Amino acid sequence: MRVVQKYGGSSLATPARILNVAERIARAYREHGPLVVVLSAMGDTTDELLALAREVSPRPHPDALDLLLSTGEVVSIALMEMALRDRGVPAVALMGWQAGIRTTPSFGRALIESVESARLERHLSGGKVVLVAGFQGVTAEEEITTLGRGGSDTTAVALAAALRAERCEIYTDVDGVYTSDPRVVPKARKLAHVTYDEMLELAHLGAVVLHPRAVELAKRYGVPLYVATSLDDREGTWIGGEAQDMEGGRVVTGVAVDESVARVTLRGVRPPEGALKRLFGLLAEAEINVDIIITSVAGPDGLDVAFSLEAGDLERAIELLAARRSSLAYDRLDAEGGLAKVSVVGAGMASRPGVAAGVFRTLADAGIDVKMVSTSEIKISVVVEREQACRAARLLHTAFGLDDEAAEAEGTPSPQGGRREA
Amino acid sequence: MRVVQKYGGSSLATPARILNVAERIARAYREHGPLVVVLSAMGDTTDELLALAREVSPRPHPDALDLLLSTGEVVSIALMEMALRDRGVPAVALMGWQAGIRTTPSFGRALIESVESARLERHLSGGKVVLVAGFQGVTAEEEITTLGRGGSDTTAVALAAALRAERCEIYTDVDGVYTSDPRVVPKARKLAHVTYDEMLELAHLGAVVLHPRAVELAKRYGVPLYVATSLDDREGTWIGGEAQDMEGGRVVTGVAVDESVARVTLRGVRPPEGALKRLFGLLAEAEINVDIIITSVAGPDGLDVAFSLEAGDLERAIELLAARRSSLAYDRLDAEGGLAKVSVVGAGMASRPGVAAGVFRTLADAGIDVKMVSTSEIKISVVVEREQACRAARLLHTAFGLDDEAAEAEGTPSPQGGRREA
Repeated sequence: MRVVQKYGGSSLATPARILNVAERIARAYREHGPLVVVLSAMGDTTDELLALAREVSPRPHPDALDLLLSTGEVVSIALMEMALRDRGVPAVALMGWQAGIRTTPSFGRALIESVESARLERHLSGGKVVLVAGFQGVTAEEEITTLGRGGSDTTAVALAAALRAERCEIYTDVDGVYTSDPRVVPKARKLAHVTYDEMLELAHLGAVVLHPRAVELAKRYGVPLYVATSLDDREGTWIGGEAQDMEGGRVVTGVAVDESVARVTLRGVRPPEGALKRLFGLLAEAEINVDIIITSVAGPDGLDVAFSLEAGDLERAIELLAARRSSLAYDRLDAEGGLAKVSVVGAGMASRPGVAAGVFRTLADAGIDVKMVSTSEIKISVVVEREQACRAARLLHTAFGLDDEAAEAEGTPSPQGGRREA
Repeated sequence: MRVVQKYGGSSLATPARILNVAERIARAYREHGPLVVVLSAMGDTTDELLALAREVSPRPHPDALDLLLSTGEVVSIALMEMALRDRGVPAVALMGWQAGIRTTPSFGRALIESVESARLERHLSGGKVVLVAGFQGVTAEEEITTLGRGGSDTTAVALAAALRAERCEIYTDVDGVYTSDPRVVPKARKLAHVTYDEMLELAHLGAVVLHPRAVELAKRYGVPLYVATSLDDREGTWIGGEAQDMEGGRVVTGVAVDESVARVTLRGVRPPEGALKRLFGLLAEAEINVDIIITSVAGPDGLDVAFSLEAGDLERAIELLAARRSSLAYDRLDAEGGLAKVSVVGAGMASRPGVAAGVFRTLADAGIDVKMVSTSEIKISVVVEREQACRAARLLHTAFGLDDEAAEAEGTPSPQGGRREA
């Protein structure tokens, strides 16, 4: 029975926390035998190294930056090896290249191509705890790379897949996946189980417990994930392939809120042929991510196109579209900030009609205007005024039976949630 | 024409100093083409990492400690690669294992077994500045090691030897090798050239410009060394094989002072047979280094043995010898602290008689009592009272014609000298 554990940066931020994690690993070793543990850099180390780089270079060269940043995780595994050996646990610390993590040469956002696991297997057979530096790998040319955002989670899942581990445990500073952000919805409950797809939707929607990339990899290789806090022994959340009916055949798993949404509407785009390609090609080139897109039926006055985007990108989008007005040929541009997206997610949704109707009814009864809608197999998102977003989320949370009835309606001390470590 | 340069930690202590060194490397590149540059960790990084390790483990495991410490030099080469690329200099940064530095598995004090220089050669042929992390290597088992004291100097010399470089330039925070420590002898002069053997004696005697280990390696492979400061363009000191008569056929090259010496005398050691083996075997086991040894002719009352040692080891040595009195069987133990060793060094000494006589005459005329004497081919050391050591050094410096007549006799602002960076 093989296990891969991963501990994030805030779980390792100080020598005392490193010793706390060492105790946890030692306990897992005594209970289950050899295991693999992936570590992030301590606390703010990565940010400090980035700041140091910027003192030397205004735009640090990507391959040198990767080499620099990779040292953060090496410090973690070296310190953890010391702490474990002091506890009588045989441990070995491996950098990404030593652990056989081969990546593409895309510095700063490398993709794992393969894991040559012979060395890991040898150490596990030798009865050791194998500590692996997360977030890093090596190219075929033996150059050090980093994996970018969600890197250490991805390392852990990749190793679990390569070793056919029974599970991958991600220990972090949140204690699991909630039905909603407890800061927004005080009655949010921790979920015992979510599916990969639900987790992906929730992750993309801002429930940043796990990076979507790591969840996708786990889904592809069928690696069961377990997310919990490293600070105590509270039960966390399992993320797996099947919607297990642990919670009474629930239709909706969670409600997510993204409070920084804007909308742009272009009216009378001409000619309608190729208009979407021109428009969204232009935005993609400028690296402006577009979320929901709605188009009218093209008529004699051209096409109307509305799209939602990150509020932070709105100004840049307006400038870009104004500058290209002649080539895009539209009559009018309307822009609206101060919006939010509220999403209802659930793997059971696909087979149960009426969820969308329930969302619209709930919001209409409360007098909340829906500005845009987007649906998928397991998600319904609506764009509303930002001031109404939290109320909408709470109403939907209640309407779909997600409320933790034990929690006080207001002023509950929030469980840990929201932002998480890298 | 190949060159290896090495920059020490204090030359890299801040981003500004890193940029200063980048300018120097860029200049060398434009003047000479591709070169190899070995870097130490920034400033106090190694000490900071050691302190961090001690917060996690009272006695950090050596292999984990080596992995931890190795990150310091990696930070340096990564930052330098950024700085050089910003200056249009093609650079590549290599950790010890990437540079092919294979070592023994003696963690914390590994010895270089070989340098597999194919990768270095390839990058040099490709027109690059190759930045190599000093102080580190890798075992046949792919475990990271560090070389211990003098590590980065040793890395530089080993690479110069493997690449058959024309010279190895060591840039540090002292500007060369002096005839004596300028804080002790204000009229000390910088030497343009010393031989490997002279440098070895001076290094062992406390002129810590270069670690003896690096000098020995340079001597074995005939690598010419050049030591200078990284702060400006003052001429430094060449260290090479032949005593070049640049300085008028000098007999004596320098005068060194070690102010922390003690002496232990054992009287009436019995039986005299095997007495030295027993005594010094015991001290060696306790890792107490002995310097000068003097024995009497063994008589009916046994053997008298006197030896000098580091003042810091005196107490431990006394305790040890007292505890073993029954097995060592001596009549009396006399111990004396507060001594110093003054040494006169010169490769020309072997072929010129009378140097010893000159030393004794100079000291006797000044009323300085000589307590112990030790001689080698190129060195005469005397142990004297610590209070008289500096005066003895100045008198010998003058007597052997080493004085810089341009310097004031007293109160001269000292050139940089003495302690140096790691």
